[in-house]
Amino acid sequence: MESEQLIIFDTTLRDGEQCPGASLNQKEKLEIARKLALLKVDVIEAGFPAASPGDFDSVQEIANEIRGASIAGLARALEKDIEAVARALNKAASPRIHIFLSTSKTHREHKLQKNKSEIIKMATDAVRFGKSFFDDIEFSPEDASRTEHDFLYEVLEAVIDAGAKTVNIPDTVGYAVPDEFGQLITNIKQNVSNIEKAVISVHCHNDLGMAVANSLAAVKAGARQVECTINGIGERAGNAAMEEIVMALKTRKKFFNLNTRIDTKHILSCSKLVSSLTGFFVQRNKAIVGKNAFAHESGVHQDGFLKKKDTYEIMNPTDIGLEESELVLGKHSGRNAMSKRIQDLGYNLTDAELNEVFKNFKILADEKKDLFDEDIISLIQKQNFSEDDLTTYKLESLKCSFESGKIPEACVTIVDRDNKRHEASANGDGPIDSIYNAIDKITGLSCKLIDYQVMSKTKGTDAQGEVTVRVISDNVEILGKGVGVNTIEASGFAYINAVNKLIFKTKSKPPESGKTSGP
Amino acid sequence: MESEQLIIFDTTLRDGEQCPGASLNQKEKLEIARKLALLKVDVIEAGFPAASPGDFDSVQEIANEIRGASIAGLARALEKDIEAVARALNKAASPRIHIFLSTSKTHREHKLQKNKSEIIKMATDAVRFGKSFFDDIEFSPEDASRTEHDFLYEVLEAVIDAGAKTVNIPDTVGYAVPDEFGQLITNIKQNVSNIEKAVISVHCHNDLGMAVANSLAAVKAGARQVECTINGIGERAGNAAMEEIVMALKTRKKFFNLNTRIDTKHILSCSKLVSSLTGFFVQRNKAIVGKNAFAHESGVHQDGFLKKKDTYEIMNPTDIGLEESELVLGKHSGRNAMSKRIQDLGYNLTDAELNEVFKNFKILADEKKDLFDEDIISLIQKQNFSEDDLTTYKLESLKCSFESGKIPEACVTIVDRDNKRHEASANGDGPIDSIYNAIDKITGLSCKLIDYQVMSKTKGTDAQGEVTVRVISDNVEILGKGVGVNTIEASGFAYINAVNKLIFKTKSKPPESGKTSGP
Repeated sequence: MESEQLIIFDTTLRDGEQCPGASLNQKEKLEIARKLALLKVDVIEAGFPAASPGDFDSVQEIANEIRGASIAGLARALEKDIEAVARALNKAASPRIHIFLSTSKTHREHKLQKNKSEIIKMATDAVRFGKSFFDDIEFSPEDASRTEHDFLYEVLEAVIDAGAKTVNIPDTVGYAVPDEFGQLITNIKQNVSNIEKAVISVHCHNDLGMAVANSLAAVKAGARQVECTINGIGERAGNAAMEEIVMALKTRKKFFNLNTRIDTKHILSCSKLVSSLTGFFVQRNKAIVGKNAFAHESGVHQDGFLKKKDTYEIMNPTDIGLEESELVLGKHSGRNAMSKRIQDLGYNLTDAELNEVFKNFKILADEKKDLFDEDIISLIQKQNFSEDDLTTYKLESLKCSFESGKIPEACVTIVDRDNKRHEASANGDGPIDSIYNAIDKITGLSCKLIDYQVMSKTKGTDAQGEVTVRVISDNVEILGKGVGVNTIEASGFAYINAVNKLIFKTKSKPPESGKTSGP
Repeated sequence: MESEQLIIFDTTLRDGEQCPGASLNQKEKLEIARKLALLKVDVIEAGFPAASPGDFDSVQEIANEIRGASIAGLARALEKDIEAVARALNKAASPRIHIFLSTSKTHREHKLQKNKSEIIKMATDAVRFGKSFFDDIEFSPEDASRTEHDFLYEVLEAVIDAGAKTVNIPDTVGYAVPDEFGQLITNIKQNVSNIEKAVISVHCHNDLGMAVANSLAAVKAGARQVECTINGIGERAGNAAMEEIVMALKTRKKFFNLNTRIDTKHILSCSKLVSSLTGFFVQRNKAIVGKNAFAHESGVHQDGFLKKKDTYEIMNPTDIGLEESELVLGKHSGRNAMSKRIQDLGYNLTDAELNEVFKNFKILADEKKDLFDEDIISLIQKQNFSEDDLTTYKLESLKCSFESGKIPEACVTIVDRDNKRHEASANGDGPIDSIYNAIDKITGLSCKLIDYQVMSKTKGTDAQGEVTVRVISDNVEILGKGVGVNTIEASGFAYINAVNKLIFKTKSKPPESGKTSGP
């Protein structure tokens, strides 16, 4: 029997991005969308256009540029939301609208205060309104797994009649177990009379650690679209992890008999990109993309008994793009060599961007003997972090000293947009604390540091470190990032990055009230 | 129908500890064992006594002290391994031996080079030999999920006849899917004639992201013991995560109708302890114990629509011990208040240890305004990290300076075991690099830094940072840890900690060759 195809619907930029602490700016979202297209996902859910002007702009930018994948926008069952998606996806080659509405008893009563027939009317009105703009309409009855089955069938039948081409069954609160969730899909197939006119999709959350297994149980029962995210990020414990879904289907091909279009060799680099841009680090023992997932490969701990590879290995690490980092470029490499390598890594930069990266490349090559792919990627990201319209302050120089038993002191020089130079000194509990205190003196902002992390990106004492800070000011949480061989300097950059983003964010329009989170 | 009880078999200290990069010392293992006893796990697999003298000692120490849980030791189907477990568990109140032997075709042929009847003889001989020391015998046919079913039934019947009280079915390579794995348990129940004389256990790996779902499918089919680890750590992508298994059973009580003895309110603190001691950080969206798992609780991102708690919440965060950190102690708190709080946190320290912690507590209270539970825990761990027999070098003081555009320089003073003072200065790519170079000058060791991480443990600019370094020297990978308000100083402590461990490790006997990894 020939294998059918499973549609991979990626919601990293929507469900993934909207979880606490994962905020991405427009450039970062576009970069992830490019990578998702390279990975060959079928649908990219780019965002929730009605949620905020920033969300609208980034969905539009992605729709305008990305080709080779459908671009979806999320909407509540409201005309204004649907119109916003239509405007944002105006130039998409293959636009899709994803309309959602809660159907479970608890959501109907406590969230929407509507009865069953009102829900059905809202849902079908929304789908019919959507039809005036879209051919490709997906509908999600939110909290489907906790909805009374009969009512769920009724809703699905009605929205399919109204024109929905995909019906998505979300396990919104991550409550399902595989047996039960697979059975729900079987029941839907048996009880929704027009179900063959739509693709059944599933959207599973991981609150009890079963998002992947639930998705696959649904697929086994006949679902033909899975909604998932890179690294499984998303609300609370996240969504089903795309890399796990895809590699389980590939590894257990005989059991599932399904294909995906995913080009798996980009999985690892996509995972690293999402992890770095969101500041959500992947744990060492994460399936597929964790550092240890293929660790018996390292040789250091290889079991003396290993006589044949498949004794302990069911997947080939090169399938996900795991190869030893190679020394690709050095001090004497030219702009062309670097530009070629950047293209190979899947990035598509403008000439101006390439020039900026090359300038930093030369500086880094002076500081660091060996340059790996990760270093190049860091440089690209460093350049992306410092968007011009964001930059109110630039860190020009810093100086600090530390001696056991004495109070650390730091002195920083910052240049503002008007090219005015500011200098300040401060003490603190440590060198980094004193740098941050000195920066606060200049900006006059009071930022509360709630998280500070450093991760080495490459190996060796001269490795680049990635500093991630999270600060809160007036209830707004901001992520700041800095990369460099020198951790102290990178810590300064990360804090300035957070300050700049904070100033930009408080200037721009706040998200509309009553924002809801989606399936 | 009254609920049956599921036996929770924790293998954090065996399967969890043996994965690349998770090395724990004896004191750390004991501390985790104490916490596991507090959590009320039924069985603690403390280690693999025959693997190395260090493993033997820590199993013995745990067996001597811990009460309220069975203590298990792992053994290959070899007399010398079984004797080693017997010696190590000599003083355990409730000892168990866990004997394993590979049964799958690929393992038989490539790992063991034995035929089926030789395997059955080895297995039954081992169980019978075990009977001379143990009443409580568990047997694992390694790679069971890839073993021919008929042969698997035959092995199980034979070992149960020989005296095994628990038969454990490992999905050693994480290849199973829930449907299939549940069916395997059903088949075992139907085809192994004496199966009612033994408890069926499962041990699932997470390579395809389904360890928890596979374990629960097995439980639904009749398994009554689950082997799991805190945070799901373990070989490659790890084992089934205990917190997910336990909370799924609790949250879906009606579906599973099973109880565990686990005192769930210690889950979060146990997760934090394991994460901190292994240096394996838990990702933000990890189910149950990730920072975001209950993030809709934070208020910052709370949905405006939320009218009723269970709209998006299926678990109560206080069930796992998640509460706002409280300001518990300050500058003026006495030794009694601190000692009381340490007991409440579940630690059981000697007077000498308490004195040491109190000394550091006073120093910290001078540096830091607010002292949280996490700070107290850090102090306890800091004290534990610096075991006397490990300490060859002590960092007395350090001094470093950094100025943009100039080469950083550091000067360190180290005291050795003979109280001799050493001083050295060095340059580097950054302040931390220069500190490490200066330390290398004194020790004469060449350590390659392969990973450097800083995580903030508490909130605020005066939060304590936890520095984790991984260094390699002569193919031995070592984890070093340091904690402090000052990141630079903590980085120095972490490196010295790694150096001391390295010296200790190379002095002690190497593990015997042919070490194998277990189910």
